[in-house]
Amino acid sequence: MSAPAQRITIKEVAAAAGVSKGAVSIAFNHKPGLSEATRERIFTVARELGWAPNSSARSLSTRRPDTIGLALCRPARLLGLEPFYMDFISGIESVLAERSCSLLLRLVSSLDEEIALQEAWWRERQVGGSILVDFHQDDPRIAPLTSLGIPAVAVGHPDLTGGIPSIWTDDAAAVAEAVRYLAALGHRRIARVGGPAGLGHSAIRERAFQDTLRALGLPPTTPVATGFAGEEGARATRSLLLRPERPTAIVYDNDIMAVAGLGVAAEMGVTVPDELSLLAWDDSQLCRLTHPTLSAMSHDVHGFGAEVARELFDVIAGRPVRPRPVMTPSLTPRGSTASLRTAVS
Amino acid sequence: MSAPAQRITIKEVAAAAGVSKGAVSIAFNHKPGLSEATRERIFTVARELGWAPNSSARSLSTRRPDTIGLALCRPARLLGLEPFYMDFISGIESVLAERSCSLLLRLVSSLDEEIALQEAWWRERQVGGSILVDFHQDDPRIAPLTSLGIPAVAVGHPDLTGGIPSIWTDDAAAVAEAVRYLAALGHRRIARVGGPAGLGHSAIRERAFQDTLRALGLPPTTPVATGFAGEEGARATRSLLLRPERPTAIVYDNDIMAVAGLGVAAEMGVTVPDELSLLAWDDSQLCRLTHPTLSAMSHDVHGFGAEVARELFDVIAGRPVRPRPVMTPSLTPRGSTASLRTAVS
Repeated sequence: MSAPAQRITIKEVAAAAGVSKGAVSIAFNHKPGLSEATRERIFTVARELGWAPNSSARSLSTRRPDTIGLALCRPARLLGLEPFYMDFISGIESVLAERSCSLLLRLVSSLDEEIALQEAWWRERQVGGSILVDFHQDDPRIAPLTSLGIPAVAVGHPDLTGGIPSIWTDDAAAVAEAVRYLAALGHRRIARVGGPAGLGHSAIRERAFQDTLRALGLPPTTPVATGFAGEEGARATRSLLLRPERPTAIVYDNDIMAVAGLGVAAEMGVTVPDELSLLAWDDSQLCRLTHPTLSAMSHDVHGFGAEVARELFDVIAGRPVRPRPVMTPSLTPRGSTASLRTAVS
Repeated sequence: MSAPAQRITIKEVAAAAGVSKGAVSIAFNHKPGLSEATRERIFTVARELGWAPNSSARSLSTRRPDTIGLALCRPARLLGLEPFYMDFISGIESVLAERSCSLLLRLVSSLDEEIALQEAWWRERQVGGSILVDFHQDDPRIAPLTSLGIPAVAVGHPDLTGGIPSIWTDDAAAVAEAVRYLAALGHRRIARVGGPAGLGHSAIRERAFQDTLRALGLPPTTPVATGFAGEEGARATRSLLLRPERPTAIVYDNDIMAVAGLGVAAEMGVTVPDELSLLAWDDSQLCRLTHPTLSAMSHDVHGFGAEVARELFDVIAGRPVRPRPVMTPSLTPRGSTASLRTAVS
């Protein structure tokens, strides 16, 4: 970066526009008392001089920061593929829109890059606070961002988020419900197609999955980790269906991979749900559009995003917040799950 | 809004931190020459006083604005449902990430709200430029944003974007290719499930659709307009398949509606592609995950977003740009289209 330009002051803007400093302030605060012509002249002069009111100082003084930060450490290509993040972001935006706020969105390629970015955003007052997502075990963001003092809400279980105010879905309980349901339908060979092994919530789900199998006296299954993309879900499903002891039920970590699994079953002539039950996660509209429709662990991802945004405004305003789970994903049975027929048991 | 707070100056920050103004400048420009302790003390004091360097003035002086604006006039709920925008945004982000820039994203409920927002963003130097999307016929944004002088790139045909540097896909040519292909397969009753009638590109596609039917001597069909959501695509498909003269081929305006159409055909016992051909638009990964896979008018939506972002950096830098179409969507035949069997002709 270069050195800051010579600072233009409000006084210079006022002089150039032939008005008082008060008039410039009135114009930029959209208050009554100026003719349209004067208002326009002030804006034009300010633009020409490159002057703007210090919106960050204003935000601070009014405690109404109008920008919220969100950094995503995902490859750009993958971001467009998964319904979860767009649903989540649309929920955040729904709360921001009510308050005339915007979301500052950045893709980063590492958590270290995110740390540097959050520091810059906060020092330069580009954001009033940030939403932190995709926590890892021993997440490196916790110490620097806590000491920075940036108002933040962490999306993740408190075991992962190190004291940053957090909101999460109780994934362990939801996984246990999913497995118990499939077991109640008579399934004994239940597999799971999970997200990246390094992500905290993937690890929580995998542990709950194996724990529940064990508690039910069912055989453990080799985990299949993916990057959440549909094509990886297809590959994982194909490989599971080619195992000598092929599973009769598969739980997926999102819904696009379950849609892909349904396609693979059709391609391989395995009838869903007669021979194979499939259970999706997140439950975007995709699950209701396939035939058969997809059973899913449903939660309101849009509402989750909205809740996170509301919590962040509480943190920014200094209102007390308590870490809490939002509603636990619950089972929505549809056409892709059924009790195990004798033919394949 | 309230009146601006008393402005804190760099001099006061320097005094409070016990350093020179130059040292504050060095710290905030991340230049060498200060101990870590001094650097940290400056940041702490600046934060406590609510002071930040005027990053907008700096951006102007260096001509490297680090934030790009995008306002979307879509209901928050719908935003999460359609692959197109997340793919498009991920393409924008891929170019922004290379340049350490962020996207300022806001949902608005009307074009008037967008106009006020773009004016505020530009006046307060919150963005270095904006991407404008979803042009309507006689779009009300053109005049005020042109006179504002904000660097902008319009995503839309020049007939709609009134002289703002624009990039678009040649939808008319793509629609003509889609209809001609289905006609070549022997289809004579071809229907179209389109986007909102008010959107410029919906109107362009509908006109091209009817023109091509006429040129081929095929009967015109009553247009079905939707809001792009899968469930609307399902309803539209059901209603088309219940018509006395039911179509043997349907062209959809996006891919989520085509996925929904495939589900409705299965639900109604209409075999795809034997009795009904379906052709999707945009071609996200969804089209390759269904069974049968969906034929689609494909284009690189991610690349389209990237191209728009690159063009905006050219506009901001004052480099010459020329309005141009990106690659025209082209036909990718898959399992959902086939020549018309005699049984239903």
